[in-house]
Amino acid sequence: MAKAPEQEHPQKAFGWAAHDVSGTLSPFHFSRRENGADDVTVKIQYCGVCHSDLHSAKNEWGFTNYPIVPGHEIVGTVTKVGSNVSKFKVGEPVGVGVIVDSCRSCEICQQDLENYCPETVFTYNSFSKDKSITYGGYSDFIVVDQRFVLRFPEGLPLDAGAPLLCAGITVYSPMKYYGMTEPGKHLGVAGLGGLGHMAVKLGKAFGLKVTVISSSPHKEAEAIQKLGADSFLVTSDSSTMKAAFGTMDYIIDTISAVHPLAPLISLLRMNGKLVTVGLPEKPLELPIFSLVLGRKLVGGSDIGGIKETQEMLDFCAKHKIAADIELIRMEEINTAMERLVKSDVKYRFVIDVGNSL
Amino acid sequence: MAKAPEQEHPQKAFGWAAHDVSGTLSPFHFSRRENGADDVTVKIQYCGVCHSDLHSAKNEWGFTNYPIVPGHEIVGTVTKVGSNVSKFKVGEPVGVGVIVDSCRSCEICQQDLENYCPETVFTYNSFSKDKSITYGGYSDFIVVDQRFVLRFPEGLPLDAGAPLLCAGITVYSPMKYYGMTEPGKHLGVAGLGGLGHMAVKLGKAFGLKVTVISSSPHKEAEAIQKLGADSFLVTSDSSTMKAAFGTMDYIIDTISAVHPLAPLISLLRMNGKLVTVGLPEKPLELPIFSLVLGRKLVGGSDIGGIKETQEMLDFCAKHKIAADIELIRMEEINTAMERLVKSDVKYRFVIDVGNSL
Repeated sequence: MAKAPEQEHPQKAFGWAAHDVSGTLSPFHFSRRENGADDVTVKIQYCGVCHSDLHSAKNEWGFTNYPIVPGHEIVGTVTKVGSNVSKFKVGEPVGVGVIVDSCRSCEICQQDLENYCPETVFTYNSFSKDKSITYGGYSDFIVVDQRFVLRFPEGLPLDAGAPLLCAGITVYSPMKYYGMTEPGKHLGVAGLGGLGHMAVKLGKAFGLKVTVISSSPHKEAEAIQKLGADSFLVTSDSSTMKAAFGTMDYIIDTISAVHPLAPLISLLRMNGKLVTVGLPEKPLELPIFSLVLGRKLVGGSDIGGIKETQEMLDFCAKHKIAADIELIRMEEINTAMERLVKSDVKYRFVIDVGNSL
Repeated sequence: MAKAPEQEHPQKAFGWAAHDVSGTLSPFHFSRRENGADDVTVKIQYCGVCHSDLHSAKNEWGFTNYPIVPGHEIVGTVTKVGSNVSKFKVGEPVGVGVIVDSCRSCEICQQDLENYCPETVFTYNSFSKDKSITYGGYSDFIVVDQRFVLRFPEGLPLDAGAPLLCAGITVYSPMKYYGMTEPGKHLGVAGLGGLGHMAVKLGKAFGLKVTVISSSPHKEAEAIQKLGADSFLVTSDSSTMKAAFGTMDYIIDTISAVHPLAPLISLLRMNGKLVTVGLPEKPLELPIFSLVLGRKLVGGSDIGGIKETQEMLDFCAKHKIAADIELIRMEEINTAMERLVKSDVKYRFVIDVGNSL
């Protein structure tokens, strides 16, 4: 018989959890393991609210284990390090992202792509190697093996930097892997939410021309004036869309709802690349003629490995990139989730865990 | 008022044409232009029968101009060269493939990708720069600008080498472009027709492990014993398919009918690439989860440029690769087309034009 969450491990922990498909979060007592020789204990200060947190809290992907403590955009301060830990010191700011463990020995892990390892342990709603369920960053502290902890570079704000740990790396990694960073090339960003607004900022930092592709005309002014996009396309405006056919080299598609790919693929030039990072719940229609006759590709990408996440954080610090956030208190999380359903956030909620839990 | 095909140009020509959607071919008198300063006249000896010939003869893609003389896998002998022609001499064997002209000046042409130029002139059923319709290789001779004529390397059989000009380059080009040639990697070839059997041979020449993926179990013995494939997967055999999930690095999908992509994508390892070269008449369902969680891509590719076609011919001559063909006489073409509908050919019909027209 499994132990209750509060008795499972020796350290008492406290956070907010959802207990059923309503997804409503409420205070929750649980426990965490002792800080082992390779572990780093992090007092959590900020945690971003990712769309995955919402999907998981409501069991929309069908594999939620309740109670669930979401949160995988964690920034905090080191409070303890194990005897084998040399990379981190007590008092330092660090980050923890979407994954906290993997097999560490397979070919994939050896290529620093732990995020694709078949034995990846996710930061929440996942089984640790000791079989206990992982609890995320909507909580007071977390214990993580040093291999999965990120240095938080100087100059990066702790609150607005938190979303980089999922939203940031999720768009940075495919841009690097698929070769979408050649200065002067034209990047389309489909969908302007948490991921999309990071793609705009990263695209500009790479020296690209960036066009936001959105179904919401009211987002235009801010996309251009605040986020720095070069232009804005409204998907329902068919004449403007047509005029833009064949003008883009790359598209990052961040739309997580089912949507037509054909108009996006038409926007691509020959040899154009569309990378999808959203996870629509059904297959999308792929227009083969367009792919074949223009030698275009559609690829997927899922977050990024730890080494690349560190590289991304350092890149963002250097280029002074962080998320645009709305800072909320822990007790505001349910209202925030309701607004998130309606995409009513610019562009990421971040919970001020340190001052409100 | 347009002139009749026979009076359009000064040179009398003779071939076989389809005149309506029945696709039935019959003898046809037409004409060709004089051999200009940059032109090469080719007496046609052999012409492969491509699936596109069938689609076009029956107007299955909806843009056929009747009468149509198909044929774009042409091998013959040079009988005349213009004053500016230095690359070719009378008496030499040469090839003509899918394209006979392009704008020659755009960025795409300058990268030797004339096949993707928006002004590509196809070998048949296309408009030349002089507005006359092009007629293909089911005919006695053809006049082609030297830029679009291929040297036919020594050692390559003229009859079995003809299908390289479309089937061969169509699978060779994506293998090169998408980086699917790393020795020791595992290539799946979906569909074992004209294109598929060339992909098996090219895959082996690149040093790959090759598995044929087919809905026809009876093709297994020949795929392995004659074509040299390493293994064979029957798509309807779900347990064997499942056992092969995650084992392939690349897949060339040559299936031109509408078919499920999901099982093929499941066969790919992480970072796996599926390239489709067939042209199903409807969009295919793209399983996004599988693409994202395995960082896989689906790409398209359409024939290849002239420079790369030459490279492919030289590669095939060096590696002693040609198509497996059934040589037919011109008057057998309608029966051959009927068999082609049923995929009843191993693996390409080639018309012995020189001896039967």
